[in-house]
Formats: sequence, structure tokens, C-alpha cells
Amino acid sequence: MKDQKATIIVHSGEHDKIYSALIIASGALAMGMETTLFFTFWGLERLKKNGIARGKLSNMNFLGIGKYIMSRKMRKSNVIPLEKLMKEFRELGGRIVACDMTMDIMGVDKDNMDMNVIDEFGSVGTYLKYATESQLNLIV
Amino acid sequence: MKDQKATIIVHSGEHDKIYSALIIASGALAMGMETTLFFTFWGLERLKKNGIARGKLSNMNFLGIGKYIMSRKMRKSNVIPLEKLMKEFRELGGRIVACDMTMDIMGVDKDNMDMNVIDEFGSVGTYLKYATESQLNLIV
Amino acid sequence: MKDQKATIIVHSGEHDKIYSALIIASGALAMGMETTLFFTFWGLERLKKNGIARGKLSNMNFLGIGKYIMSRKMRKSNVIPLEKLMKEFRELGGRIVACDMTMDIMGVDKDNMDMNVIDEFGSVGTYLKYATESQLNLIV
Repeated sequence: MKDQKATIIVHSGEHDKIYSALIIASGALAMGMETTLFFTFWGLERLKKNGIARGKLSNMNFLGIGKYIMSRKMRKSNVIPLEKLMKEFRELGGRIVACDMTMDIMGVDKDNMDMNVIDEFGSVGTYLKYATESQLNLIV
Repeated sequence: MKDQKATIIVHSGEHDKIYSALIIASGALAMGMETTLFFTFWGLERLKKNGIARGKLSNMNFLGIGKYIMSRKMRKSNVIPLEKLMKEFRELGGRIVACDMTMDIMGVDKDNMDMNVIDEFGSVGTYLKYATESQLNLIV
Repeated sequence: MKDQKATIIVHSGEHDKIYSALIIASGALAMGMETTLFFTFWGLERLKKNGIARGKLSNMNFLGIGKYIMSRKMRKSNVIPLEKLMKEFRELGGRIVACDMTMDIMGVDKDNMDMNVIDEFGSVGTYLKYATESQLNLIV
């Protein structure tokens, strides 16, 4: 799948949606696709400083089963925490774009953003440039 | 990006989802793409008479921050209200299709629909005709 | 639309989302497209034994109108129940893939799954193989 590209817009902030997005995105990278994630609206909140770490705490019950049972299941099944998935995605060469229009609307400053996980700030034009070159485009 | 096409199914009725859909759709139009929005289920509710206007009132807190703070932020950042985005989308040549099957299920009559924002009534066949010709297909 | 393919990831478990996915998927099949549905996370729950039947009871109010009014509307409009849509989708040649990683995380055994509706167990690699060959890819 060389020369193919993929984009996923992360509009939702829910752990399970971001989890799905990262699993698909890292899978696409592993198959040789150039992959870009666009974080906007509730998703963008997760790119604030400590945004993903906050996620880590609550994604314990992201399958609705209760925290205790789920955390036991997750230890057993070695599910990977979101920040580790995000780190691996970027180490594999994945690109993370933060939506600057959402930042404007929310009055969020670049100083509040976690620059350890952001490659680029961009607008809808940035997104469409990537999306129209991509074989796979999703929004979660 | 001439000769490229885009579709977005608006299944959700939430303001932030419709907002994202309209921003992407108008961006696609601006880049020369033929763009169609399909409103179905909760999205279709917003095409009823006054459906988008009702939206205007409550999208003040679509970023979850509380209405007062948000409306102040929005005045400052000049965020565009949904009905204005919708109007601009159509003035730029965007097409809005209302799902007639959803109308059947809900027993909604064409008389209840806001014909100022609808270009066409269509079914899944209409959607698939556009989608299979499009480079970019999303559902929110 | 022969030789075209479609995929839909069913991440959500909500009746209206699955309903939309099945309507689009069956429409795509009817137009000659090879169509695959990937059930993951909350969607996967619906592929457990009796998972879709449980859906049948509660999708009465999936348009938020109250169960009594909605069920009357649905009798009148002959809306098709989810399990019937699922059955027809598969009879038309549609493929249903269950995400084995979600099963691992949740500690769900194959014995708990409804093998009457599942064609195949697969991972993100299975999905990407289909998706990169497809003209239409959605996630609900």
C-alpha cells in the first residue's frame, strides 16, 4: 500500500473514538501509508497539555463495564494506553495536525497546547489538501 | 481540485457536528469541489422549518464551556452562526439533499420542511450515486 | 457500479447509527458493490448472541419521539427491524467482520458471539485491506 495516504479527523473527545482512530492510523502507517490525524473540537481538547494523560485515567471504563472489571481486563489483555499509542503513531512517522480555527473559537493559546504531540497547526484547507490525495478518509 | 467531488452525510443533529460538516463542505466548495450534504435522522430534524434557527440558540454552548463565557468568546472570535454557514454553502453552489426515507419513518410532511435550505429530496440511491463519484466521503 | 467496493466500520452501538450503516450497505450491495461491515467496540456488542434482538426492543424510540408514538409511526411506515436488515444484507452477499482485538480487550469469547451474523473475525489489517480497495469508506 505504498504511495497510498490516509486521514482521520478526530472531532470527538471520547476515549473509545480516539482509540479506534489511533489503531486504524497506526495500522495504516504500518502498511506503508502516509497518515495524518486532524484534531478538532472535542478532539482538540485532548491535545492540550495533559489532555491525553487525563484521558488515560478515564478510559478505564470506555467499554461501559465498570472501572474495576475493565481495568482488570485491560491488565490481562495488555491494552495499550492512549498516550503510548499516540507516541508510537508519531514515532512511526504519523503526522498530527491541530485545528487552529477551533483554537480561535475557544480562545486557546498555543502555549496551552502540548507541543510534544503536535506536528503542525492547520485549517480546513490543510485538511482538504491531504484528504483529496488520500485513499482513506474518516471522521470520528 | 477541479473535477473532484465530496459528500458528507449529516446523521447527527448536534451543533458541533453540523458545524464541522459545514466548514469542511464550504472549504471543499471553495477549492472547486462539487459538494453535497445529505441530511438524515437527527440531521434531518434541522432542516425542518426553524430547525437551524433553533440550533442557533443552543450552539452557544457547543464547546461545553457554559453559555455566557462561550457567547463572549464567539462574539470576539466572530464565529459564524450555522444558518449563515448553510446559506453561504448554498450560495457557493453547494447542494443539500434531504433523506425522504427518514421523513417517511417520522411521518414528516414536505410542508414541514424548510424549502429555503433544501435543493432536493433523495434516497440512499441518490447518496450512493454522488458518493461513488466522490474523492471525499464522510458521515458525521 | 460493478467492481466498486464499500466498507463501513460500525463503532457505535446506537440503533440509529447501525440502521444508517445497514441502509447504506444494502444500497451499495444492490448497486453491485462488494460491501463489508466491520463491527468494533460498542458495535461489536450487537453481534453477541441476542445482541441485535435486544436492539429491536429499544430502537422503537431511536428518533427520540417516545416509544408509543414511534411504534405507531413505524407500523404505519413499515420500517424494517435491524435483524431483518442484517439478514437481508448477508443474503444479498454482504460480509460482516467482527473485530477480534475488541473481543480480546473485553474478554469476550467466540462462544458468546452470534455466528449466524458473523462471516469472519478480523483485525485492523483485515479492515485496511478492504478499505484501501474501496471507493467508499465510512465509520459510524
